[in-house]
Amino acid sequence: MAVQTVATSSDTTVDLGPAAALSCRECGHRVPLGPVFACEECFGPLEIAYEFSAYDTEELRRRIEAGPANIWRYAPLLPVPADVAGKPNLNPGWTKLVQADNLARELGVTGGLYVKDDSGNPTHSFKDRVVAQALEAARAFGFTTLSCSSTGNLAGAVGAAAARAGFRSCVFIPHDLEQGKVVMAAVYGGELVGIEGNYDDVNRFCSELIGDPAGEGWGFVNVNLRPYYAEGSKTLAYEICEQLGWRLPDQIVVPIASGSQLTKIDKGLQELVKLGLVEDRPYKIFGAQAEGCSPVSTAYKAGHDVVRPQKPDTIAKSLAIGNPADGPYVLDIARRTGGAVEDVTDEQIVDAIKLLARTEGIFAETAGGVTVGVTRKLIESGLLDPALTTVVLNTGDGLKTLDAVAGTGLTATIRPTLDSFREAGLA
Amino acid sequence: MAVQTVATSSDTTVDLGPAAALSCRECGHRVPLGPVFACEECFGPLEIAYEFSAYDTEELRRRIEAGPANIWRYAPLLPVPADVAGKPNLNPGWTKLVQADNLARELGVTGGLYVKDDSGNPTHSFKDRVVAQALEAARAFGFTTLSCSSTGNLAGAVGAAAARAGFRSCVFIPHDLEQGKVVMAAVYGGELVGIEGNYDDVNRFCSELIGDPAGEGWGFVNVNLRPYYAEGSKTLAYEICEQLGWRLPDQIVVPIASGSQLTKIDKGLQELVKLGLVEDRPYKIFGAQAEGCSPVSTAYKAGHDVVRPQKPDTIAKSLAIGNPADGPYVLDIARRTGGAVEDVTDEQIVDAIKLLARTEGIFAETAGGVTVGVTRKLIESGLLDPALTTVVLNTGDGLKTLDAVAGTGLTATIRPTLDSFREAGLA
Repeated sequence: MAVQTVATSSDTTVDLGPAAALSCRECGHRVPLGPVFACEECFGPLEIAYEFSAYDTEELRRRIEAGPANIWRYAPLLPVPADVAGKPNLNPGWTKLVQADNLARELGVTGGLYVKDDSGNPTHSFKDRVVAQALEAARAFGFTTLSCSSTGNLAGAVGAAAARAGFRSCVFIPHDLEQGKVVMAAVYGGELVGIEGNYDDVNRFCSELIGDPAGEGWGFVNVNLRPYYAEGSKTLAYEICEQLGWRLPDQIVVPIASGSQLTKIDKGLQELVKLGLVEDRPYKIFGAQAEGCSPVSTAYKAGHDVVRPQKPDTIAKSLAIGNPADGPYVLDIARRTGGAVEDVTDEQIVDAIKLLARTEGIFAETAGGVTVGVTRKLIESGLLDPALTTVVLNTGDGLKTLDAVAGTGLTATIRPTLDSFREAGLA
Repeated sequence: MAVQTVATSSDTTVDLGPAAALSCRECGHRVPLGPVFACEECFGPLEIAYEFSAYDTEELRRRIEAGPANIWRYAPLLPVPADVAGKPNLNPGWTKLVQADNLARELGVTGGLYVKDDSGNPTHSFKDRVVAQALEAARAFGFTTLSCSSTGNLAGAVGAAAARAGFRSCVFIPHDLEQGKVVMAAVYGGELVGIEGNYDDVNRFCSELIGDPAGEGWGFVNVNLRPYYAEGSKTLAYEICEQLGWRLPDQIVVPIASGSQLTKIDKGLQELVKLGLVEDRPYKIFGAQAEGCSPVSTAYKAGHDVVRPQKPDTIAKSLAIGNPADGPYVLDIARRTGGAVEDVTDEQIVDAIKLLARTEGIFAETAGGVTVGVTRKLIESGLLDPALTTVVLNTGDGLKTLDAVAGTGLTATIRPTLDSFREAGLA
C-alpha cells in the first residue's frame, strides 16, 4: 500500500501508514502526527485523520482476507506502518465471534445472537488491541519506555506488550490494589509503581510526569498516545463485520468505561461502509453500564447532552470511570443510530456472567456481565429488537474477576462411594 | 471425505470420520468403536485405528489450509464426523506459535525458538483440545452427561464444553480444592461434586461409577472416552508443523503428566510424514517434569524401561501424576528420537515463568515454567542443540496458577509527586 510520510511537531518523519495527521474532534484543527492528545486551539480531543489509499474495494477485501489471523489484517486501515505484522508485538485480535444459540433461546432472540469474545486476546482483554496501536506509535516517535495509569487489565497489557517489543515499561497503579491484580501486571518484569492515592491521583501524577523532563522518552498509552491507542477499538468493528460475512450487524451492545470504545466501533463501521466493504444499512449501537457507575446511562435517560460525573461503586471495576471523557459522543451515537444506554445492578451482572457461562461456556469478566445483562434488560423493555441480528461484546476474562462469582461452588460433597452418590440425588 | 460407518459393541452405528476401530497398543487386538478404553485380551490401552481417505496430498493440504481457524481444519485426521465444525462446541486450537527471539537470545538458541502457546484456548489450557474430541465421541455414543475426575484445568474445560454443547455435566474433584479452582469450574453451571478424599479416591470412584447402572449415559472424558480424548493432542503436532510452513521442528519440548500428550504429538508428527504433508527427517522429542513429580525423568536417567510411581509434591499441579500411565511409551519415544527427559525444581519453574513473561509477554501456567526451565537445563547440559529449530509447549495460563508467582509485586511505592518519583530512582 501507499505509505504516508508526515513530519511530526518534533520534525521527525514518521510512518504510520494511512494516518495523515491529527484532527480535533471538536473544531477540526489539524496538526502533524505526534505524541499529543488535546487540541491547541480548543482543548478538544485529537483523533487520527486518515488518507486511505485508493484501493479497489475487492482488492482490499482480498488483501484483508489473505492477511494474518490478528488485527494486522486491517493494517491498511490503522495508524501503523505497512510492515507492522513483522515487528515484535503480541498480535492480538481475530477473536471468536461465537454464534450464541443457547443464549439466544434464553433471551428470546430470534434474529441471530453473537458474542464477540475478546477474552481470547493474549492477555485476555480487549486492551491488547489498543496497546498494540500505541506501541507502534511509541516506536514511530522514538519512545523507549511504555507507560500507563491502570487499575488492572491495562497494566498487564502494557507490561506484556513492552516485554515482547523490547521496551522498558513503567506502570502506575493505586498502591492498595488487590494482590492478584498486582501479580498479573508484575509478572512481565517491568517497573510497577504503587501510588499512595486513588486512581484519580495516579492519573494526575501521570499528566505531571508527561510535562516533566523525567517523562522524556515515555509513551503513556492512554495519555499522550491516546489518539493512536483509541483506534485499536475500530478492529472490533472490522472483525465483527468480516466474521458476519462482510455484513453490518443490526444491533451491537458495547460496554462503556470512558466511552472511547463505543465511539471507535461506530467509526470503524462507518469506514467499512465508506470503503464499500459492507452494504450501507441502518445499525443501532447500545451502551452498557453498571448501575454503580452509570453517568452516561443516567444522562441518556434524562435526555441530557452532557454527563454529570459519579463516584463509582460497582463490581465492574474495568468500567468504573465516573467521568467518562467520551460520554457526550456516546450519547450522540446512541441517539443518532436509534440505540440506547442502559445499566444493570451488580446482582444482575453476576447473574449475567453465570447465564453466559452456562449457556455458551464463556466465562466473562464483570464487563461481559454488564453487556449481557443490559442486553436482557433492553429486550424486556422493548428497546432492543429480538428479531434482528445482535452482537454483544465480552471485553475481558472471568479469571480476572473471580471474586465476582466467588459464591459459586460445589453442588454437593460426597464420600467416594456409590451409596453416597445416590444419597446426594446425583444418579 | 468418505465417511466410515462402523458398528459399535452396543450395535449402534457411529460416524467418527476416519476412526475405523479401536486397537490395543500392546497386542494389536481390534474392537469396534465404543466407549471402552482397555483391551479385553491383555488390558493394554486402546487407541484409535484410522482408515484415512485416499486423498491426494496437495488436495488434503489445500483443504486443511482452507479450513476454520481451529482444530477442525484437521477433521479429516481426527475421530470426528466430517461436519464437526457445524456442531456446537468451543472450537479450540489454532493457537499462536510465537517466534520467541528474545527468549532465544537469553537461552543462546540460534536455530529458531518457538513457543506454542495453548493458553489461547477457550478455557486457557490445552485441555479444550482433548475435551472437544471426547465430546464428539459422547455425541456419537448417545451419552447425555459429560464427566471427569479433575484437579483443575480439565474441570473447567469439561464444564464449558458441556454447557455450549447442551450436555449435562458432572465433574468430580477432591473436596478440599482451592476456592479459586472451584469457582473456575463451577461457573459453567454443571454439577461439581467434591469427593471426601484425594485425587486417587476421586479416580477410583469414577471407575466404580462407570461400571454401575447409575453411570449409564455418562461419558467420562478421561476414562471411558479416553481413546478419543487423547487424540486431541495430535492437533498440537499438526498446528506446529503447519505454522512452521509444513515442516517438522528439529526439537520439541513437551510437559509430561500422564505422558499421553507426548505420545500423541509423536503420533501426529508421524501421520504428517506418512500423509506426505511434511518431509521426513529426524526430530527429537524431549519430556519435561517437575522434580517434585518426576517418575519418568527418574526412570529415564536410570536407564529403566518401567516407571516407579512417586508421591507428587510440586507447584506444577497440572503435571502432578505420580503414576503416569504412558510413562513407558514416553521413555521409548525420547530414546528412539534421540531426545531426553529432564526435570526442574519448583524454584526453577518460577524463574522460568518469569523469564518467559519478561522476554515474550507470555504468562504461563506452572507447566509452562516446567518446559521453559527444562529447555534451559537441556541446553546447559548439551542434550538440546541450540543450533536447531526448537518448539517449547506452554499448555496453560498463568492466571490459573497465580500462587506460584505470588511473590511478584510492586517495584516501588511512591507519593503522587515528581519529587517522590525521583527519590525512588525511577527517572
